[in-house]
Amino acid sequence: MAFMAACTTGMAQRPPQTTGYNRYVNPFIGTGAVDKNSLSGSNFPGACTPFGLVQLGPDTRDNPNDPASGYDYNDTTIVGFSHTHLSGTGVADLFDFLFMPYTGDITWNATPENGHKGFRSAFTHEQEKAVPGYYSVQLLAHKTLAELTATAHCGVHRYTFPQQEQGRVMVDLDHSLDKKRPYWECKVISAHLEVVNDHTIEGYRVITGWSRLRKVYFRAVFSKPFAARQLREGGQVINNGEVANGRSVKAVFSFAPSNAPLLVKVGISAVSAEGARSNLAAEVKDFDFDATAQAAANSWSKELGVMDAEGTDEQKTILYTGLYHLFTQPNNLADADSSYAGTDYTVRKAVDGAHYSTFSLWDTYRAAHPLYTLVQQGRTAGFINSMIRQYETYGYLPVWQLWGDETYCMIGNHAIPVIADAFRKGIAGIDYAKAYEAAKASSLRNHPGSPFHLLEQYKYFPEDKQSQSVSLTLEIAYDDWCVAQMALQMGKKEDYQFFLNRSTYYRNLYDQQTGFFRGKNSQGEWLPFNPLTYGGNGGSPFTEGNGWQYFWYVPQDVPDLIKLVGGDKAFVNKLDTFFTHNAKPEDVNGNASGFIGQYAHGNEPSHHVIYLYNYAGEPWKAQQYAAQVMQQQYNGKSSGYSGNEDCGQMSAWYIFSAMGFYPVNPANGIYALGSPQLSKAVIKGLNGKNFTVVAEGAGGKNCYIQRVTLNGKPYNKTYITHSDIVNGGTLVFTMGEKPNKKWGVAADSRPPLEEVR
Amino acid sequence: MAFMAACTTGMAQRPPQTTGYNRYVNPFIGTGAVDKNSLSGSNFPGACTPFGLVQLGPDTRDNPNDPASGYDYNDTTIVGFSHTHLSGTGVADLFDFLFMPYTGDITWNATPENGHKGFRSAFTHEQEKAVPGYYSVQLLAHKTLAELTATAHCGVHRYTFPQQEQGRVMVDLDHSLDKKRPYWECKVISAHLEVVNDHTIEGYRVITGWSRLRKVYFRAVFSKPFAARQLREGGQVINNGEVANGRSVKAVFSFAPSNAPLLVKVGISAVSAEGARSNLAAEVKDFDFDATAQAAANSWSKELGVMDAEGTDEQKTILYTGLYHLFTQPNNLADADSSYAGTDYTVRKAVDGAHYSTFSLWDTYRAAHPLYTLVQQGRTAGFINSMIRQYETYGYLPVWQLWGDETYCMIGNHAIPVIADAFRKGIAGIDYAKAYEAAKASSLRNHPGSPFHLLEQYKYFPEDKQSQSVSLTLEIAYDDWCVAQMALQMGKKEDYQFFLNRSTYYRNLYDQQTGFFRGKNSQGEWLPFNPLTYGGNGGSPFTEGNGWQYFWYVPQDVPDLIKLVGGDKAFVNKLDTFFTHNAKPEDVNGNASGFIGQYAHGNEPSHHVIYLYNYAGEPWKAQQYAAQVMQQQYNGKSSGYSGNEDCGQMSAWYIFSAMGFYPVNPANGIYALGSPQLSKAVIKGLNGKNFTVVAEGAGGKNCYIQRVTLNGKPYNKTYITHSDIVNGGTLVFTMGEKPNKKWGVAADSRPPLEEVR
Repeated sequence: MAFMAACTTGMAQRPPQTTGYNRYVNPFIGTGAVDKNSLSGSNFPGACTPFGLVQLGPDTRDNPNDPASGYDYNDTTIVGFSHTHLSGTGVADLFDFLFMPYTGDITWNATPENGHKGFRSAFTHEQEKAVPGYYSVQLLAHKTLAELTATAHCGVHRYTFPQQEQGRVMVDLDHSLDKKRPYWECKVISAHLEVVNDHTIEGYRVITGWSRLRKVYFRAVFSKPFAARQLREGGQVINNGEVANGRSVKAVFSFAPSNAPLLVKVGISAVSAEGARSNLAAEVKDFDFDATAQAAANSWSKELGVMDAEGTDEQKTILYTGLYHLFTQPNNLADADSSYAGTDYTVRKAVDGAHYSTFSLWDTYRAAHPLYTLVQQGRTAGFINSMIRQYETYGYLPVWQLWGDETYCMIGNHAIPVIADAFRKGIAGIDYAKAYEAAKASSLRNHPGSPFHLLEQYKYFPEDKQSQSVSLTLEIAYDDWCVAQMALQMGKKEDYQFFLNRSTYYRNLYDQQTGFFRGKNSQGEWLPFNPLTYGGNGGSPFTEGNGWQYFWYVPQDVPDLIKLVGGDKAFVNKLDTFFTHNAKPEDVNGNASGFIGQYAHGNEPSHHVIYLYNYAGEPWKAQQYAAQVMQQQYNGKSSGYSGNEDCGQMSAWYIFSAMGFYPVNPANGIYALGSPQLSKAVIKGLNGKNFTVVAEGAGGKNCYIQRVTLNGKPYNKTYITHSDIVNGGTLVFTMGEKPNKKWGVAADSRPPLEEVR
Repeated sequence: MAFMAACTTGMAQRPPQTTGYNRYVNPFIGTGAVDKNSLSGSNFPGACTPFGLVQLGPDTRDNPNDPASGYDYNDTTIVGFSHTHLSGTGVADLFDFLFMPYTGDITWNATPENGHKGFRSAFTHEQEKAVPGYYSVQLLAHKTLAELTATAHCGVHRYTFPQQEQGRVMVDLDHSLDKKRPYWECKVISAHLEVVNDHTIEGYRVITGWSRLRKVYFRAVFSKPFAARQLREGGQVINNGEVANGRSVKAVFSFAPSNAPLLVKVGISAVSAEGARSNLAAEVKDFDFDATAQAAANSWSKELGVMDAEGTDEQKTILYTGLYHLFTQPNNLADADSSYAGTDYTVRKAVDGAHYSTFSLWDTYRAAHPLYTLVQQGRTAGFINSMIRQYETYGYLPVWQLWGDETYCMIGNHAIPVIADAFRKGIAGIDYAKAYEAAKASSLRNHPGSPFHLLEQYKYFPEDKQSQSVSLTLEIAYDDWCVAQMALQMGKKEDYQFFLNRSTYYRNLYDQQTGFFRGKNSQGEWLPFNPLTYGGNGGSPFTEGNGWQYFWYVPQDVPDLIKLVGGDKAFVNKLDTFFTHNAKPEDVNGNASGFIGQYAHGNEPSHHVIYLYNYAGEPWKAQQYAAQVMQQQYNGKSSGYSGNEDCGQMSAWYIFSAMGFYPVNPANGIYALGSPQLSKAVIKGLNGKNFTVVAEGAGGKNCYIQRVTLNGKPYNKTYITHSDIVNGGTLVFTMGEKPNKKWGVAADSRPPLEEVR
């Protein structure tokens, strides 16, 4: 009987207890669109801890490319479990150290053609489970249950094989992003695997890919000795080998049949072999899978507790899964002992203990970082200190930093608004003199995508000399405004004037005739223009968008944009057309999705646009569209996002909007009011104070604000300030089915240029 | 008058005083063949210190390939001065951080076609000078004198520009080996250059090439502020830029016209940015070029003083330049503070202070390392400790290690004879238990080029499963003999028997019918065979040689080889044919040169063959050919070597041979006697004792030994032992024009299998 019990227990999934808000996290949200051809969130369903180095999860693709997470909910087979993943990006990388448990005899390089059984296994979502810190799946081809959990730097696997069969584990150091991606070819420069003793292996790989150079080390300890092993070095098989070096290094470890599951604990380091050993020793002392999984779950429920929310289960699922995605990165690359490899590939110790990376800044500066300043103030300092470290060795702040290395993905220098926002909000633990120096240097020193000498010469970027010129001119104008504001607050008047002046250069690309920002060449001539025509990532004045979507990008001075277009009425008309003009040219960029007219919620350039109605006296339209997006473009299933989740940005948009406010300008301390969906939300622990939002009658058709009180007093402004939030207090909305066209329409109801304290 | 004096002094080359044996060093030896199509030594003429990290010298090729040193004496223009070079290899790499002083306006990417003046300058050997630790050349196009010197980790440049002209310095971080070489494409992964202040720059590059991954950092301090600067990042020019990152990073620094020369001191590190700074601070405290150059010269005269030699000036020039080349590498990769990056790309500290790399072992185990055990005993321990560090992180000893990274160039595991030799000779400072463990592991663990499972299965390498099979079977048999001898001396009887048995597997490829070692397939069938047909580096049973050249490769048991071929007479006949059979098939491998019949002194497989006459009773023929090679294939000019100098091996052959003895088996403590060319040679400081060789009448036609005394007693053996040398004493040869066919012909005159003490 004991035997049977063990058997039953062994094959059952044993997830950790999901307490607190973990109950509302569905890690499958964002893992797959409704059909394979739509955009999905590109999230992964694997096990990780908040901001941890390790994301241990399933890959359904051999050499992942799209989705960049390596897992598509629409796929039906799994190729293995790798230890690092990106959450929500448009480009793939990582996928370090694929482990695949299996049974039976398998031929390397099995193909459908040669009829051999491969490692790959079918699975079903019915026999798959994911909760914060835990993932499990039944591998049908191998009759094997795989369960995964993680610590900050380690993965722990539990494999339950059929009792009478020899269990095997394939370890693949060559699993990586598609080697033929159009950006720099991915290539393993050197990989190493060695057998330390009969239940321990170590290894590393050095790989160039999207991140130009990554060094990743591991140490894996199995709970049982392997009975046999086979290493593989390129095409060479080394039976019972002790070491393999090469570009393509793989191995198989075989274990005697057993009743008890096989556990593997794997320490990872981005620094050194010793780091992988120390990380494992520090974080996973024994083979207690359940305790590790419970600790991972607990770390999530603690982090998710920064907010209380009331609403429907689906709303809470979207909200808390959003926080979960928001807290999945930036990832602490530093070892447990604070060692990290800098942007100059030199190892140092982080004085503040952590070195964060994966900065998808073109996305996350908009709402994700402003949300971190509310619910992750300590880590916000860590993020910015880590960005400053890039400046110190590399000469400028991150554009898009991956695994500590600059990728120059996307445009602008949007670490600057992150810094300016933290400075304005008084986030502690940052050397702001150094931070300002970094922001200024990043705005003056030419670097890829930022040829400032052209800006100084032409007062805009001419498309014939710098592509993506309209998007760049607009976005850098915003970054310049952020530098100017920091300079002003620091008393640096000359800098203030210089950058304030440059922050108006968007005007130089406003074409009165078409009423759009439009590309110009170095002769000062307008380029042929159709506001519906999309650009991608080069070769057009527009970046992943069209003239319609980029028209709205003057968050630093919306009143001036209104003036440019001819006043409130013209501006509102233009907004109305934007949300209703359904014309879709053939060349829609692959990143544009989630359409309402020309509004494309699936990509970031649109994200602030809904709230611009507040600036022109018709806030009820913002309320209407905000509610529409939340209700139609988010859900609690795998297809929960209408585009790439982008490292927390899509989630942050929802979290802010569902509370009823959004940072149109992410660095001015002002949040525009919209359409709260949650009946109640509390941001907890802001300097010991809570900020409470109540939305009476919220949800469904009640998308319109009827009236508002702040701390009990009637409130007619269409915005709140950061001080309102951090000083604690209560914001109460009363919602209804019909717009209250009298609320929020007074001239002084409009969001100002910045918070003045 | 002071002005004129300064002017005159400024434009004159001011090399350091050349004292001691530095007078006999001509760094141009090996830098160019008589004509461009012949093989040269592939040495470089630049400034370096013994075993230093930096070799600062001129490159005549834009992206060097052949010669691998980047400099060909036959070239007439120089493209700049880079800080790292290989000396004598057949494959190119390094060339880090090219500096080029120039005058006038220069367009980037000048070509002969576009008529623009480029950085490249004509030069003449009349206005070029190289002595140990110093190199200078007049750059005719720029009317600029460039002088270079070095410390272990730093280069110091002194540029004297025309007084009325603005001097400029171009710095190129993209100068590297030919990016289209057939082995792994060379590619800069990331490069960085930043302006620290108005006279200091720093930077690094991470590059994949022959060495799969090299990180190289520098800090350069100019003696004057630059008046202007231009950075270049790919095709983008950044005027007065502060930082440039990218794959192709270059810069130009301009200086106001001046009477005084411009100095630049450049610290290099293979570890970190901090390492480059610390190395510079530790080694070049001020801008005293002359003192630095004198210190470099002094370091050489001290090292070269390990031997005293008497003979003609040309003999001494060949000898001491040979020592100079021998002591140019292995290079200490560790920083001044002992930090080094291991084979696993992890930074550690070397407990013995140094971490040596550039192990061209297929070449150097033959005579270079045996010579180090006589004249560089302390560093021999350092070399072996460094090799063991590769074993500890990588799993096996170096095959061909470059910049700390395994390249798998050539074949065999010839770190093993180096270790076995040191063990037999009692070199102190090595953990021999660990060293034996490493040698054994390297002989059992499959790795690229060493598929031992095939050897165990077939008792030879079958060509259809492992190319270069004859060369591999022979060379690994020798390595196995070395492991066996260590095992025997350590009392590991089982290991001894195992490896002794494997060391005889050469017999399994001896084809009685043709009388050669011959390729066999896995069916046991002989492959088609012509002993004249060459192999290269794959695709043939022979490595950079033919059946004739590889026939002789049983250094561990020459008597058995004699037996295989049918006895002394047959063996001597075969040797005679070898040295006289002039047939040259069309497919001579590019590495074969320096022919006497089929003997090819320009490549290593032939190096021991001359001395095999001693083993078959006709030592006078060894004397004749040894003298012929020394007199005809070495000279004191740029064409001084008949093939690649190969990191000291070609030089070590001469140094041993010119003293009159040579280590046929590099690990058995036996040296076969040949034809001394020096009238006197003293190896100094061997445990406080000197070993003196006197060769009365040596040189010219007096190539034959008439008689020998050892410590005053008549000596009829055709060999001496290592004990004879290290115990001190005097070996006196009397030489004559005619062979003494009675000396050295007794049965007990023949070299034994090993020294028995």
